[in-house]
Amino acid sequence: MASKPKAITSAPTKEELNARLDTIRKEMRKNELDYYISFDPVNIYYLTNFANNVHERPFILIIKNKGSPTMLVPLLEKSHVESRALCDLQYEPYYEFPAPTGQNWYDIYPKLIEKHKKVGIESSLPVGISQKTPGNKIIADIIDEARIIKTDYEVGRSVHACRVINKGHKELLKMCQPGVHEFALYQKITGIMTSKIITDIPDANFMVCKTTAAVWPPSFSHDPHIIPKIFAQMEKGGPHVSIVYAQVDGYGVEVERTFFLGNVPEKAKDIFEIMYNAREYAYSMLQPGESMSEIDKKVRKFITDKGYGEYIIHRTGHGLGITGHEAPFLAEGYDRVLEPNMLISVEPGIYIPNLGGFRHSDSVLITEDGYVKLSKAPETLEELIIPIK
Amino acid sequence: MASKPKAITSAPTKEELNARLDTIRKEMRKNELDYYISFDPVNIYYLTNFANNVHERPFILIIKNKGSPTMLVPLLEKSHVESRALCDLQYEPYYEFPAPTGQNWYDIYPKLIEKHKKVGIESSLPVGISQKTPGNKIIADIIDEARIIKTDYEVGRSVHACRVINKGHKELLKMCQPGVHEFALYQKITGIMTSKIITDIPDANFMVCKTTAAVWPPSFSHDPHIIPKIFAQMEKGGPHVSIVYAQVDGYGVEVERTFFLGNVPEKAKDIFEIMYNAREYAYSMLQPGESMSEIDKKVRKFITDKGYGEYIIHRTGHGLGITGHEAPFLAEGYDRVLEPNMLISVEPGIYIPNLGGFRHSDSVLITEDGYVKLSKAPETLEELIIPIK
Repeated sequence: MASKPKAITSAPTKEELNARLDTIRKEMRKNELDYYISFDPVNIYYLTNFANNVHERPFILIIKNKGSPTMLVPLLEKSHVESRALCDLQYEPYYEFPAPTGQNWYDIYPKLIEKHKKVGIESSLPVGISQKTPGNKIIADIIDEARIIKTDYEVGRSVHACRVINKGHKELLKMCQPGVHEFALYQKITGIMTSKIITDIPDANFMVCKTTAAVWPPSFSHDPHIIPKIFAQMEKGGPHVSIVYAQVDGYGVEVERTFFLGNVPEKAKDIFEIMYNAREYAYSMLQPGESMSEIDKKVRKFITDKGYGEYIIHRTGHGLGITGHEAPFLAEGYDRVLEPNMLISVEPGIYIPNLGGFRHSDSVLITEDGYVKLSKAPETLEELIIPIK
Repeated sequence: MASKPKAITSAPTKEELNARLDTIRKEMRKNELDYYISFDPVNIYYLTNFANNVHERPFILIIKNKGSPTMLVPLLEKSHVESRALCDLQYEPYYEFPAPTGQNWYDIYPKLIEKHKKVGIESSLPVGISQKTPGNKIIADIIDEARIIKTDYEVGRSVHACRVINKGHKELLKMCQPGVHEFALYQKITGIMTSKIITDIPDANFMVCKTTAAVWPPSFSHDPHIIPKIFAQMEKGGPHVSIVYAQVDGYGVEVERTFFLGNVPEKAKDIFEIMYNAREYAYSMLQPGESMSEIDKKVRKFITDKGYGEYIIHRTGHGLGITGHEAPFLAEGYDRVLEPNMLISVEPGIYIPNLGGFRHSDSVLITEDGYVKLSKAPETLEELIIPIK
């Protein structure tokens, strides 16, 4: 396992953002695109460092083959964009939404694109905006694609983000006891992580900061995507499954563990071991050139051969980045090989009703010769039995 | 002014959700639609009470002319939907994203829609999903439209949501003093509101709960959509502008005030008065049948006649509902009249660089014969001068 890259907490330089734009332009040339239109706030953030939520006043980034990209922006938000964007931008402000005839975004937008040109659009572009986009439109998710391979700067930011969740998870395990409420845990652990974020990055943009901490107790840990009720309580025994996630000023990472309070049911020991070994098996395949579809298939086969195939309900892992869930995917049907500077979760899981869920997840960087785990928490069953006080 | 309707904190009944669906079906019939496709999580929540964030695993709601709607859902999330949806639904789970050929969402989805039928889609539908949608597609935002007029149940929930922000704003004003950090205020006030939410609604779904509290001090209150830095501090004098927003288990409302710490600059007194009177003027026009475009135009004219037209940077108000910003709009160019059970913000503003911003906002219900303010906070300049301790 390679050593962990150095953590970075500073904002991206203009050079970093220009390099990202260059990558996009290279793909535009390959696809012979004259324009690329970005509406996805995640993609806009990636290229500009400006974060927004989608609401009724659209922000649209128009990238030409050369020169600074143009941002179509509500007048009200122009200075907001200026205060956060760290790349060169041209601005086309519009009056308001809605606006008097001739001054709406859709009155101005089509004029910014020359007719009869080839225009790349995101598959997530709303049809209502696509409809107003002139030219020969081609769906091409080239910013999403570029985001799959992290720059060294992004890796450094993710290393730092993992320090936040590592601290959060450490504190989480300390407070786990039967009877502890979901809400108390959420409040305390997200508070600890938020404090660390603003201490380390006093200028953090809260539009791209998010912290989550929760525990699924054994009565519903077999159901990993249910949202726990606020007053759910931890129970004796297990398996409990923790989730600690943070988006740290734009960089999303996660760490999750299966743990027990006091005793471990006999049956759970076996399943824990299968999960643990499936995970080890997944890690053993993590190196550049390996097929991500094959890794998932092999891990599923490993669990299936032990007799628990029907209790697999999700893929082995997913990409991490600005969001917590994004490409690439360790998933059957995802025909792509691992490459250095991919950042992924590794989290094969087994979910058995009336027994519980078994899953560890880590944030893992693919390196030139293998991988390095950026998140850190206890892994063995022995370490994950918490004595009842 | 009519009296405030009674607050409601209980979950919607199946009858409430069926009535919403009936409204949609009525519009489908008017538009001769055989299907309506909803992907917007806000619209899906409106019809089902199930809340999700958009990520790479799509949830798609397919509404036919009769029978229960069908939800295309990732296998992993089926029980999550079941645990929250309060209407009848049929489920079509898909394996995973990505998935082996034949088992992806886009392999299953087109089969759920009969060929050659008329299919209504949202203008926000991603082009990548639209592309996979068979039939003769027509953009028709009929759920967004239905949401403009609140049901009595929604009104009751919004009355309760306003109790949360009213409490938050009251506590906010108590802690405003020069030197107080943005972050301390945010932590304390969102904590107070969150505690009230979970006390009043122990089963609240955190996917649709959000609280925000912030103050724009005079050095940047002229710029209402900038995001304050975490360690920004309140200052002597003013105008400061507060924002208190909450989405309370699915119901979003806001209250905002212009206030001063200690002294009021002479110039600010005049502008405050103009803003105050512009607001009074707006309220005087709030009754069913009034044109929303005209109200905005008249309020803008009022401010312009006083010499401050160039400092108007946004419309007079916007709709409130599941989100904090949605139709209808008190905005020039929005050609629709006020109707009973619309819920809107009323917030004409004046923003002068080197002086500051002037805006009060309230959450206001349109009634049969006028309006009722659901949010409550001090309004006069006298009440909004906070003595320095």
